[in-house]
Amino acid sequence: MEEKFTPQMIQTIERLLEQKKYVSIRDVLTTMKAVDIAALFDETDESKRPLLFRILPKELAAETFVEMDDDTQELLIHGFSDTELKEVVDELYVDDMVDIVEEMPANVVKRILLSADSETRKAINEILKYPDDSAGSIMTTEYVTLRPDMTVKDAIKRIRRTGVDKETIYTSYVTNNNRTLVGLLSMKTLLLSDDDDVVQDIMETHVISVKTLDDQEEVANYFKKYDFLAMPVVDNENRLVGIVTVDDAIDVMEDEVTEDMEMMAAITPTDKPYLKTGVFETWGKRIPWLLLLMISATFTGMIITGFEEALATQVVLTAFIPMLMDTGGNSGSQASVTVIRGLSLEEIQFKDILKVVWKEIRVAFLCGLTLAVANFGKLMIIDRVGMSIALVVCSTLLITVICAKVIGCILPMLAKKIGFDPAVMASPFITTAVDAISLIVYFNIATAFLHL
Amino acid sequence: MEEKFTPQMIQTIERLLEQKKYVSIRDVLTTMKAVDIAALFDETDESKRPLLFRILPKELAAETFVEMDDDTQELLIHGFSDTELKEVVDELYVDDMVDIVEEMPANVVKRILLSADSETRKAINEILKYPDDSAGSIMTTEYVTLRPDMTVKDAIKRIRRTGVDKETIYTSYVTNNNRTLVGLLSMKTLLLSDDDDVVQDIMETHVISVKTLDDQEEVANYFKKYDFLAMPVVDNENRLVGIVTVDDAIDVMEDEVTEDMEMMAAITPTDKPYLKTGVFETWGKRIPWLLLLMISATFTGMIITGFEEALATQVVLTAFIPMLMDTGGNSGSQASVTVIRGLSLEEIQFKDILKVVWKEIRVAFLCGLTLAVANFGKLMIIDRVGMSIALVVCSTLLITVICAKVIGCILPMLAKKIGFDPAVMASPFITTAVDAISLIVYFNIATAFLHL
Repeated sequence: MEEKFTPQMIQTIERLLEQKKYVSIRDVLTTMKAVDIAALFDETDESKRPLLFRILPKELAAETFVEMDDDTQELLIHGFSDTELKEVVDELYVDDMVDIVEEMPANVVKRILLSADSETRKAINEILKYPDDSAGSIMTTEYVTLRPDMTVKDAIKRIRRTGVDKETIYTSYVTNNNRTLVGLLSMKTLLLSDDDDVVQDIMETHVISVKTLDDQEEVANYFKKYDFLAMPVVDNENRLVGIVTVDDAIDVMEDEVTEDMEMMAAITPTDKPYLKTGVFETWGKRIPWLLLLMISATFTGMIITGFEEALATQVVLTAFIPMLMDTGGNSGSQASVTVIRGLSLEEIQFKDILKVVWKEIRVAFLCGLTLAVANFGKLMIIDRVGMSIALVVCSTLLITVICAKVIGCILPMLAKKIGFDPAVMASPFITTAVDAISLIVYFNIATAFLHL
Repeated sequence: MEEKFTPQMIQTIERLLEQKKYVSIRDVLTTMKAVDIAALFDETDESKRPLLFRILPKELAAETFVEMDDDTQELLIHGFSDTELKEVVDELYVDDMVDIVEEMPANVVKRILLSADSETRKAINEILKYPDDSAGSIMTTEYVTLRPDMTVKDAIKRIRRTGVDKETIYTSYVTNNNRTLVGLLSMKTLLLSDDDDVVQDIMETHVISVKTLDDQEEVANYFKKYDFLAMPVVDNENRLVGIVTVDDAIDVMEDEVTEDMEMMAAITPTDKPYLKTGVFETWGKRIPWLLLLMISATFTGMIITGFEEALATQVVLTAFIPMLMDTGGNSGSQASVTVIRGLSLEEIQFKDILKVVWKEIRVAFLCGLTLAVANFGKLMIIDRVGMSIALVVCSTLLITVICAKVIGCILPMLAKKIGFDPAVMASPFITTAVDAISLIVYFNIATAFLHL
């Protein structure tokens, strides 16, 4: 995807600003999408941002504001008069406002909340009280509700009248008197029905909803599975309290993938973009795992120490340790990452564990055999080690690959079963476990074959 | 997410089938979503699937058909009469039909194409000719078009009349006489405008479109960035040829993530679900990388061989090799995975390379120092090795971690720059590179300090 702006664009805008050609700037900016204008803001000279912001048409200004990074938002808010702030706040959707409020310092939050009308303020506070990563925390309260006894004509009229402030008008939620969710109706169904049809006769009554405290990942999974454009969020009494729209679900999917990848690389997940995270913070996310893995790896060292004397008589054996450890680690990673991804796509379930292990054993046997044969050839022809050493190395290779793949597929499934995130059971932990196993196998075979 | 069916559900359905209680089965199934019914089909006894399929209401039957796995689809098609096949085919969207056609053997494809009307057949053949992973291959040709001079009232009337067969009616595309795309109009704008407004006055003219041959990943990125519900696909003359809807974009996102994760674990990516892939196929996706990495790892072995004599005099040094290699590998993976993900989220660009390297150097220094100090304590207190050996090990650790993180962040960025997928530069390759470096550092420091 190409960038929609360039350093030249920024230069052009800054020059036009100096020349006070505000109409032209406005014309240029209104050809762009909000997210691209926001990116341009984030790279423009700080002192020029407030002026530039004031040039934008009101609605576009609010849309752009949402897409800016926290620093630019904070900078702009500090420069806003109360009236200006109120104008922006009035245009924002509640869920976007919550996102902004969560990132701002307390004094800014106070100003934002004071600018919002009391209903919006209530909605914001409501959403803020749900824990991070819950359905409640990503929902919005701006949705269209219909009554069961409305006609299609009245429903469409109501949507046309009230729809402008709603996050989506393509799904309407049908509630009864005590706000209980009884059905939903897509705009498509509404438009394709007769004007006189009654909502409760044409609405979808088998509604899939989530509870406010459900995990946001679960919400995202529903979107993937059912191709929804929006999903209702209900409280414990099945009263409708909000909706999640597909664009927010996509953001959750991305966050969850990032989280998985970070865990797979032994990093404590963080929401912050890489370049915005401080050095100490990044260190803090990485060092606990490195320490833990370093300590685990010293057990592998202890195995070597146990065979130190034997090794001293056949130092050539040491040369194959990195290859055995690495191949074991790589074989295990292949299996574990495949299984972790399969679990997360729900292609694999715990009940499939025997099928998975059996498949991995066969794949591992084939892989191990191929590697062992290739290595045997190399050892005999290129390295010219003795036949017995070649046999020791190659049989260790075969056994290591089989152990690695079996461990690699079992650990993530067990982690999932006992309620941990399977992503933790990726390369680093598998590698550490497999290292120890490969060395034990190696030295035992060597001792037996070579009579050390 | 809970399963929407259970073994009991399958048993219940199978019993109801035996008792010929078809009305009840139909009632039960129509409370379920198509994707869940499809999952139930895939687990029901094969011989019962055709009968079960005939019980479903026509439209739900077609929706369910799309969600089934290839084997079930093929089985059902073999049992269909030409009339039945035509009924299903008539209900399918063109893009879904393409997906099915791509997985079926030639004789089944022929029957499907014969059942489709000539216009649909043409559309299918059109889409089939685009390469895998291109925008053209994931688009559908069922969209709503409007003329620039239509009034809002006429536009809505047209959508209500023709919308039933369209994949989405929430975005309409405005084209002129030679099918050139001139604008788009959301249903929200249409509904919130006056009946007499003219389409060309209210349409969005800054349209972001993709070309038929653009990469599907690029399409998915636009959806992420701009929160679209649909995107137009145009040919080289800017004529509208299809649209991609958000549900298909989400599928692409998932596929791309799977592909990235597989590459990061040194596996050739595949589209097939894990349990549907044969043992030999899985072996074929994994073994080339294992061989390549094994050969690379033998260079590491050669480094050890070069120091064999020195090692023989100080065998204790061997015990720390696994810890140094693993810690280096883990440190490098942390950096590379963070950078790979940052690149794919477009949080990092090539122009940031110096910023990234500088940040990683500082993080690496902190991490390396922490690990070195922790390890020094352990070596002196628990292992009780000599001070000089402890110093050799810990200074190697510090240098290795710094090298690992720098290599880990640079390699993915360089890969991206020269047009490779950065995901290849993840743990396995970084680990192999870092292994060699850590050993060279280790032995050189050891030689100098310990006068080996």
